Amino acid sequence: MSGIWGKNIKLSIFGESHGKAIGIVIDGLPSGIKLDHEYISKEMKRRAPGRSKTATPRKEGDNYEILSGYFNGRTTGTPLSAAIYNTNQRSRDYEATKSIMRPGHADYTGHVRYSGFNDYRGGGHFSGRLTAPLVFAGAIAKQILSNKNIVIGSHIKSIGDIEDRSFDGVNIEASLLKELTGKEFSVIDPEKGKEMKDYILKIKEEKDSVGGVIEAAVVNLPRGIGSPFFDSVESKLSHLLFSIPAVKGVEFGAGFDITKMKGSSSNDELYIRKEEISAYSNNNGGIVGGITNGMPIIFRVAIKPTPSIGKLQRTVDIEKGINTEIEIEGRHDPCIVPRAVPVIEAVCAVALIDLMMEKGGLI
Amino acid sequence: MSGIWGKNIKLSIFGESHGKAIGIVIDGLPSGIKLDHEYISKEMKRRAPGRSKTATPRKEGDNYEILSGYFNGRTTGTPLSAAIYNTNQRSRDYEATKSIMRPGHADYTGHVRYSGFNDYRGGGHFSGRLTAPLVFAGAIAKQILSNKNIVIGSHIKSIGDIEDRSFDGVNIEASLLKELTGKEFSVIDPEKGKEMKDYILKIKEEKDSVGGVIEAAVVNLPRGIGSPFFDSVESKLSHLLFSIPAVKGVEFGAGFDITKMKGSSSNDELYIRKEEISAYSNNNGGIVGGITNGMPIIFRVAIKPTPSIGKLQRTVDIEKGINTEIEIEGRHDPCIVPRAVPVIEAVCAVALIDLMMEKGGLI
Amino acid sequence: MSGIWGKNIKLSIFGESHGKAIGIVIDGLPSGIKLDHEYISKEMKRRAPGRSKTATPRKEGDNYEILSGYFNGRTTGTPLSAAIYNTNQRSRDYEATKSIMRPGHADYTGHVRYSGFNDYRGGGHFSGRLTAPLVFAGAIAKQILSNKNIVIGSHIKSIGDIEDRSFDGVNIEASLLKELTGKEFSVIDPEKGKEMKDYILKIKEEKDSVGGVIEAAVVNLPRGIGSPFFDSVESKLSHLLFSIPAVKGVEFGAGFDITKMKGSSSNDELYIRKEEISAYSNNNGGIVGGITNGMPIIFRVAIKPTPSIGKLQRTVDIEKGINTEIEIEGRHDPCIVPRAVPVIEAVCAVALIDLMMEKGGLI
Amino acid sequence: MSGIWGKNIKLSIFGESHGKAIGIVIDGLPSGIKLDHEYISKEMKRRAPGRSKTATPRKEGDNYEILSGYFNGRTTGTPLSAAIYNTNQRSRDYEATKSIMRPGHADYTGHVRYSGFNDYRGGGHFSGRLTAPLVFAGAIAKQILSNKNIVIGSHIKSIGDIEDRSFDGVNIEASLLKELTGKEFSVIDPEKGKEMKDYILKIKEEKDSVGGVIEAAVVNLPRGIGSPFFDSVESKLSHLLFSIPAVKGVEFGAGFDITKMKGSSSNDELYIRKEEISAYSNNNGGIVGGITNGMPIIFRVAIKPTPSIGKLQRTVDIEKGINTEIEIEGRHDPCIVPRAVPVIEAVCAVALIDLMMEKGGLI
Repeated sequence: MSGIWGKNIKLSIFGESHGKAIGIVIDGLPSGIKLDHEYISKEMKRRAPGRSKTATPRKEGDNYEILSGYFNGRTTGTPLSAAIYNTNQRSRDYEATKSIMRPGHADYTGHVRYSGFNDYRGGGHFSGRLTAPLVFAGAIAKQILSNKNIVIGSHIKSIGDIEDRSFDGVNIEASLLKELTGKEFSVIDPEKGKEMKDYILKIKEEKDSVGGVIEAAVVNLPRGIGSPFFDSVESKLSHLLFSIPAVKGVEFGAGFDITKMKGSSSNDELYIRKEEISAYSNNNGGIVGGITNGMPIIFRVAIKPTPSIGKLQRTVDIEKGINTEIEIEGRHDPCIVPRAVPVIEAVCAVALIDLMMEKGGLI
Repeated sequence: MSGIWGKNIKLSIFGESHGKAIGIVIDGLPSGIKLDHEYISKEMKRRAPGRSKTATPRKEGDNYEILSGYFNGRTTGTPLSAAIYNTNQRSRDYEATKSIMRPGHADYTGHVRYSGFNDYRGGGHFSGRLTAPLVFAGAIAKQILSNKNIVIGSHIKSIGDIEDRSFDGVNIEASLLKELTGKEFSVIDPEKGKEMKDYILKIKEEKDSVGGVIEAAVVNLPRGIGSPFFDSVESKLSHLLFSIPAVKGVEFGAGFDITKMKGSSSNDELYIRKEEISAYSNNNGGIVGGITNGMPIIFRVAIKPTPSIGKLQRTVDIEKGINTEIEIEGRHDPCIVPRAVPVIEAVCAVALIDLMMEKGGLI
Repeated sequence: MSGIWGKNIKLSIFGESHGKAIGIVIDGLPSGIKLDHEYISKEMKRRAPGRSKTATPRKEGDNYEILSGYFNGRTTGTPLSAAIYNTNQRSRDYEATKSIMRPGHADYTGHVRYSGFNDYRGGGHFSGRLTAPLVFAGAIAKQILSNKNIVIGSHIKSIGDIEDRSFDGVNIEASLLKELTGKEFSVIDPEKGKEMKDYILKIKEEKDSVGGVIEAAVVNLPRGIGSPFFDSVESKLSHLLFSIPAVKGVEFGAGFDITKMKGSSSNDELYIRKEEISAYSNNNGGIVGGITNGMPIIFRVAIKPTPSIGKLQRTVDIEKGINTEIEIEGRHDPCIVPRAVPVIEAVCAVALIDLMMEKGGLI
Repeated sequence: MSGIWGKNIKLSIFGESHGKAIGIVIDGLPSGIKLDHEYISKEMKRRAPGRSKTATPRKEGDNYEILSGYFNGRTTGTPLSAAIYNTNQRSRDYEATKSIMRPGHADYTGHVRYSGFNDYRGGGHFSGRLTAPLVFAGAIAKQILSNKNIVIGSHIKSIGDIEDRSFDGVNIEASLLKELTGKEFSVIDPEKGKEMKDYILKIKEEKDSVGGVIEAAVVNLPRGIGSPFFDSVESKLSHLLFSIPAVKGVEFGAGFDITKMKGSSSNDELYIRKEEISAYSNNNGGIVGGITNGMPIIFRVAIKPTPSIGKLQRTVDIEKGINTEIEIEGRHDPCIVPRAVPVIEAVCAVALIDLMMEKGGLI
């Protein structure tokens, strides 16, 4: 249990951090789509560890191998599957401490859920590494969207208390979004970016970790995507976003701040110009009644601090049934937020093509 | 498109605000469950309009009629369906202004989504009235949970800037939750409740509206419910929560605030006492790796201000293709938050029994 | 459990034979479809009892009431639901014998499945009466197909040993199919039809029952509908066909007889004429690799004899835990086949529009 | 599109005959199940080519590699995936004739369905080779069932006109079923088996092919598995059975022959002995109202002659848009029936565990 999502596009992910391979089957892709492998690899690298001082120095190739659904440079329309073989595992790291539950990790809940049969090495199936296949799927989805001029981009809105500028919900430019996806540390304000990085390194020194908020936007999406209630854009997007390990909050448009407005401000008043209807504001984040209104989609995602920290923590040894303490050794990210940026974009892209196929929008 | 949710329990809602009836089919309920109609009616009344000065004076019976799946006072195990017949519609209210899109409402997006064939009267299928069947389903789900001593409760965490006390994520009592569900205006601190009510009435005078935050909690839920990734408790819950009209944000545990903590604080350290494992804190809101850890589930939901306001707003007449203005007449809620409280609890209850059935927990 | 089917079109049926109402929610219908109520009623009447001497004399109105999803004469695109209220129940008939399991009926299996909480009156949810909502859905689906010139028709291929002519799998005409759907007793050869009717009446005299085979055909369906494996046309169609009570066999094209051919005969050789590819034969029933090839779809369905018979049968009293005997009184069909004809066509129509939406064929 | 099936157990198959690998992701397996690899390999070999003179001499290793969901000899409960790498392809065989549509194959329908982007080599995703992952999944499902003493077995009921004895629907023994699964050529009557083999070899000489019927049985299944209508045992089983390439008919119990009986014979009369209810006959094949009644499940599946034959056939060259002829060279099965036997059993086993999990039967 865990691995299938979607209606028109179905994702089936599999794998454990220290198993043979992780991977994905994507069912429902249209046939005839050219894949730009350079682009996919670039997206995979954005997520991959070992690229920066603010991330874990672990090196993982994250090289995908397409196993099916791809022929002569194009999708066939039959299930496209890809595997990422695990190569750089140090499983012995985990054997000694396998019964000591790491706080903030799924060690304990996974143990209960799977009656002790879960692969505990490196978090097993719960590992953030499982987001690599999601980025692979997202890279394909982004190419499909890009063919329709739809652009997704995101930035690190905050790390701890340090805040980047916000997206302008009404006038956001595709060019800014594209620029952001090219950045190694995705912020609008480079000054704030430097502050954030310094802060992360300081936290790393403390053997501690820190979280942050990612803000994402989508422009040029057609009006009328999504449905009321159970297939609302917010429902489908949040479902996938909360699947990403470490996500603890999701908000659209003005989000929680909308609760402090009055209706006369929060309502996005409409106007028509050259037969096209737009809104003066975008507090609803481009989605009203669960359906896109043609304004940019805007949402924010709260990412908790990496649970793996070097500091001493109180916890439990489930085999011995005693209280104990743990200092987590190893090569961990002091802040997972920068590496989560492409994952957020990826699941957003997948959710959108699933929703667009509902109205035949991809065909 | 819109109306089906769930895996083990499947909800299929239908209806329009001014149609013949709204209703629901619930597929997958175990057989043999006694229904307490007094309780169901009480839950329906919590949501129903016309009960208080802070809500719309519209009277809607919200009397459900069970059409199937119920025999000799118990569920049969076959699809349980219920209809709520619409009785108090004034459809003529809407005919004159049908082409004038109300800002913040789904008038425009619904028009685009359904190519102009949507029932525009009173919001049609997009109406908040469609949450009545959800409350019906939730009342049954709550009874099932209650049989297992699992209690859901919630309160109005804030209206505008006025804040109620927060739940104590570690020590929350079932008795408090039960008490809250009995209240007509659900707050922990009655002083703050009075302030909120006064504020809502003031806003009503201004022909404006206001939103708020609802905080919900679940206690006594078994450990090990939920799955990683696509069937995480957060994913399933948020999917349903964002289906509720007007919800723009969802967060679990410390939510967006967790991004300002360090890992050494945000990690919920564990301890064992009398063979039972618990956590010292509950920043993860009772869910780690998508799975319950035995701590109370805590989440908050942002509800936007009611879009229907009497103030003058700029908008579009889609038939004439011109810019225009609108003052929405009629009997509207200045604040939907109090009536949304039982809806939040209802979808939470439904999501939980769906998740619990995954592990055979209801059988 | 029981009531939801489909991907693009989702059916959710509910109800019990002697409950308040039976009905259906149809999710996913396109908006803007005009409904021809005269046609729907005619289809409902084809299935309804009390129309002929070969059927039960019970009178059931089978009048549907649309509750939602329908506005100004057209579908809205939101869930369309309809109820058929039960009016002519004689529940007392069943009370006395409720613990005596009728052979061939679901009395015993339903009792086990639902732990004795099932509504046993008139078969409850297992009643053939539940096919009325399917015919309602099918009538809508047929209208959608008819707008695209796609025609479904079927006939009684056999009753007992009496056989009607078979469809010509290659040259079948839409006009014949339309003609058949207009018949009260649907056969190609009226002589054989008379024989069948006489036989049914003779069996009725004997207080016994008889079954038969229905052969259905679909013409003018586009090529390329369906998918390999789990979404093959055969898989989707058979799934729905075997949902119909009393169906015990389904075969496509030459069906079981294809096993007696050699490949050189069973392979449908292809030819091209005026840029259109066709086949010389149609042993595959218009479906190869799970996908339509442009030839007529042909399939046959085996319907077992009505289980309700007046003859003495051995069975079990589950309350007393003893062996006993039963003579089923009441107004039963000596042969359900004629009334099953529109049901077969209905589920076929629904399956086809679900499959066609996969490729955007309805949009 | 094509590759996902199931509710409690979800299968996601992928791959093309001449691609990198074929494989499967199985989601929803309980944790802690020991896998007997010797048994799995044996099942895979039953399906694999190259084992007998009546089958293709092609050698395919069909060695599976488990990529995830398996740890320390047991299932983890997270998605179990396996790949079978393709090693013995001769893709050049297909390049020259890629535009010539082989009659009876999915060349033409696949071409239309996927707009010409399908992998045409060796049938691509339509290849019977894709049943290998199904057998892998079935082998696991059979082990789960075997732990509960549930046994599935089947035999070649007929090849062309040559018929094996039928199963005794009432008294079938688990020992017979086990014995059959151990046979290289699965028949009850060895004389008939010899006749069948001789016939297949004769047909092979003629460069032709032949089909047959497989009869399967399941014993010791609990009563009360399945649901009415859309989740009937017949619906779920037939859905999977018709997913298998070459299947053109499915019937349960007496199947099409039940249409020639009278109700007084076809109804399976019940009796009680030592508190256990059984039936005197089994014309319903162990399923009444879509639900198991404790009698053996019996069903038969019609398999068409292998479409690949060496004889001259008329067909179409879709590139040139002309009529042409084809003689299919290569190493093909003159009769696929013997190799289909384990596939039928496999999908049956998977369908049953999916259905059993509905009632918590596996937990």
